[in-house]
Amino acid sequence: MRDFLPADKARRERVLAVIRQRYRAHGFDEIETPVVEDYERLHAGIGGDNEKLAYNVLRRGLDADGIRAAADDPAALSDLGLRYDLTVPLARFYASHRAELPGVFRAVQIAPVWRAERPQKGRYRQFVQCDIDIIGDASSRAEAELITATLDALDALGLEGGIVRVNDRRLLDAMLDHFGFPEAERPGVLITIDKLDKIGAAGVATELRERSAAPEAVDAFAEFLAREKGAVNGFDDEQIRAALPDGLEGEAIGALAAIGDAVAAARGGEAPLVFDPFLVRGMGYYTGTIFEIAHPLVSYSLGGGGRYDGMIGRFLGQDVPAVGFSLGFERLVDLVADAADDDIHAVVLVHDREVEVEVAELIALKSALVAQGSRVRLEQRPKNLKPLLERATADGYTHFAAVRPGATIDTLEIKPLG
Amino acid sequence: MRDFLPADKARRERVLAVIRQRYRAHGFDEIETPVVEDYERLHAGIGGDNEKLAYNVLRRGLDADGIRAAADDPAALSDLGLRYDLTVPLARFYASHRAELPGVFRAVQIAPVWRAERPQKGRYRQFVQCDIDIIGDASSRAEAELITATLDALDALGLEGGIVRVNDRRLLDAMLDHFGFPEAERPGVLITIDKLDKIGAAGVATELRERSAAPEAVDAFAEFLAREKGAVNGFDDEQIRAALPDGLEGEAIGALAAIGDAVAAARGGEAPLVFDPFLVRGMGYYTGTIFEIAHPLVSYSLGGGGRYDGMIGRFLGQDVPAVGFSLGFERLVDLVADAADDDIHAVVLVHDREVEVEVAELIALKSALVAQGSRVRLEQRPKNLKPLLERATADGYTHFAAVRPGATIDTLEIKPLG
Repeated sequence: MRDFLPADKARRERVLAVIRQRYRAHGFDEIETPVVEDYERLHAGIGGDNEKLAYNVLRRGLDADGIRAAADDPAALSDLGLRYDLTVPLARFYASHRAELPGVFRAVQIAPVWRAERPQKGRYRQFVQCDIDIIGDASSRAEAELITATLDALDALGLEGGIVRVNDRRLLDAMLDHFGFPEAERPGVLITIDKLDKIGAAGVATELRERSAAPEAVDAFAEFLAREKGAVNGFDDEQIRAALPDGLEGEAIGALAAIGDAVAAARGGEAPLVFDPFLVRGMGYYTGTIFEIAHPLVSYSLGGGGRYDGMIGRFLGQDVPAVGFSLGFERLVDLVADAADDDIHAVVLVHDREVEVEVAELIALKSALVAQGSRVRLEQRPKNLKPLLERATADGYTHFAAVRPGATIDTLEIKPLG
Repeated sequence: MRDFLPADKARRERVLAVIRQRYRAHGFDEIETPVVEDYERLHAGIGGDNEKLAYNVLRRGLDADGIRAAADDPAALSDLGLRYDLTVPLARFYASHRAELPGVFRAVQIAPVWRAERPQKGRYRQFVQCDIDIIGDASSRAEAELITATLDALDALGLEGGIVRVNDRRLLDAMLDHFGFPEAERPGVLITIDKLDKIGAAGVATELRERSAAPEAVDAFAEFLAREKGAVNGFDDEQIRAALPDGLEGEAIGALAAIGDAVAAARGGEAPLVFDPFLVRGMGYYTGTIFEIAHPLVSYSLGGGGRYDGMIGRFLGQDVPAVGFSLGFERLVDLVADAADDDIHAVVLVHDREVEVEVAELIALKSALVAQGSRVRLEQRPKNLKPLLERATADGYTHFAAVRPGATIDTLEIKPLG
């Protein structure tokens, strides 16, 4: 977990403001939930592997006997936990407040989550996720809105060139069925296919054989993988079919083509979408479309998401369609260039140490400049002025003025810095 | 702990943006620290009563033996905790990053804190504090800057009329010494004086007698209280002296007068300050000036702060002057009127359920309007349009348009709502 110093924090807030503004323009409404959720809800099986990484909050009021009793029932030690994602809280939120929300609810959440990851470069135990979700729309409109809004947010951050890889869990299932993988084996097979980027087609085939998955299915699938079909840029019905095993059918094909059409139309003819029949996405709760966003500047994904029609229903006792797209905020912040500061006029007022200026005079000068729209920092003059002015420049200050007793806003000589 | 629905969240973000902008103009730099701090730091005695209200995070990797062993040493169950204020994290932050910060560091922190309070109206277990602190300036400039910036932030929120009650711990101490309270008794005496607003002068005298504090001191003090001197509006040296026991002296008097002068000068002649010789403020770490901000609209305080020159030194091993002002964000949000939405043009696009509009057409229309600067929500037409349009109006939408197949941005009829 990290501290953010002023320059970092200012950059984070600028990036947040852009994302917030773009998502709002696209009709998404921001909500906020508490950072802790009930222990039982966090450990209900929805969070997948992240459940094991949850920070649990010690139950209050336990005495020595209570603690001893908890040795055989560790859940008794904790009744709350820090959220590890924004999806579990969203499902709980929607179930609690459905009556107060629009029929199709477009949610934005921009908030920290916590995972007890092993410390490693680029992984943090507290990090911010930016999630947009559409609850209550089973049509491809929802995916098209999410993808369009996300690409627009990236563009607004100066990160043009984002590319969304798309697939559908139903097509993955149809494909595994087509090759003859028995249903019970498919979750394991998907875990292996998910490693395709890392271990390659040969690696996938080897690992599937080691898993002793159905041998004929593995052979047939390995042959298909070796044909190096795979991802296709931009896509229509026909291109999707061409990238899949011959004769494979499914309504997901039409749904994906509709998403491709819509994103292309929204962006004036070019959809930065790639159909990738081997895209898996880890979470078990996806039921339809899945997607992941990449950018030419980096090798890792900037975010992803998919349709999870079953999950909200678990909290509500009735099926509710839902689809979400999550951006990894920390990765975005690292990519976004330092934007020019918005402060046109930021003044350092340097007052003498020896010729003492009255506090009232100084504060009055400062307030007068602030009232004129400036950002103002007071500094007592050190022996050597240069480092002070360099630091102010680095902190975004544009001007300085030396304050002597009797100075007024009209007599103050404000000079540009640097 | 609460969920925030879209209207609440939007209002909170608007209030945050105003505060952030004003504090930045006054030369304060925003920082952020992780929400969890080390257990030992949270329980080092700096947090006063709040330490007991901390949520502690369960140590990870404890087995049954570890849990049993912790029955006699509950601290072994936890290595982290949720912060209960922003002062302990600031002290830790400053000690860690001092070399990277300006000599006089003006910090803003706007962030949630957690306290396991008993549930009661208007008290939340997760709530946001807005703290500004100046570290490294022992002069009255620091207090004057904090008070001026805070009053400016309130003004910018439309909460003109804020009044700051001011006192100094050194004067309180001198006063208790003057009346003859032995040093060991003074902390307890201050706790009683702190109840003056609630129990009145007679109540304070009674409670002090019950505490069996030095009887002659109590009598003398009770007599002074009964004289109904006390708070004076606006103040200079002479007025401060008049509100104190005759002959009481201290450099704090001059320091307070300088603050009064400076705030008056900054605000063009009227300092909304009250000198209150009986203002105590609970926290034990205050060493000098203390203050509290009130507003005519409400009976409770909107925030407060003071000088705590000793605390940062505990982390750093050397004395560093520091003074802070904390605003209670939740109370402010409740007070701020619903500002008009900034969206000049927010459009609901209503498409028919029966005459299906292509997803691509809809998304293209939406994106074209977003590109023109509108905020856009898609809605499928229900049987009865009226509730949908009413809800959109309530959510800040200003226009609507019915979308039929073949509609383009040029042929779309956009009508004002309501």
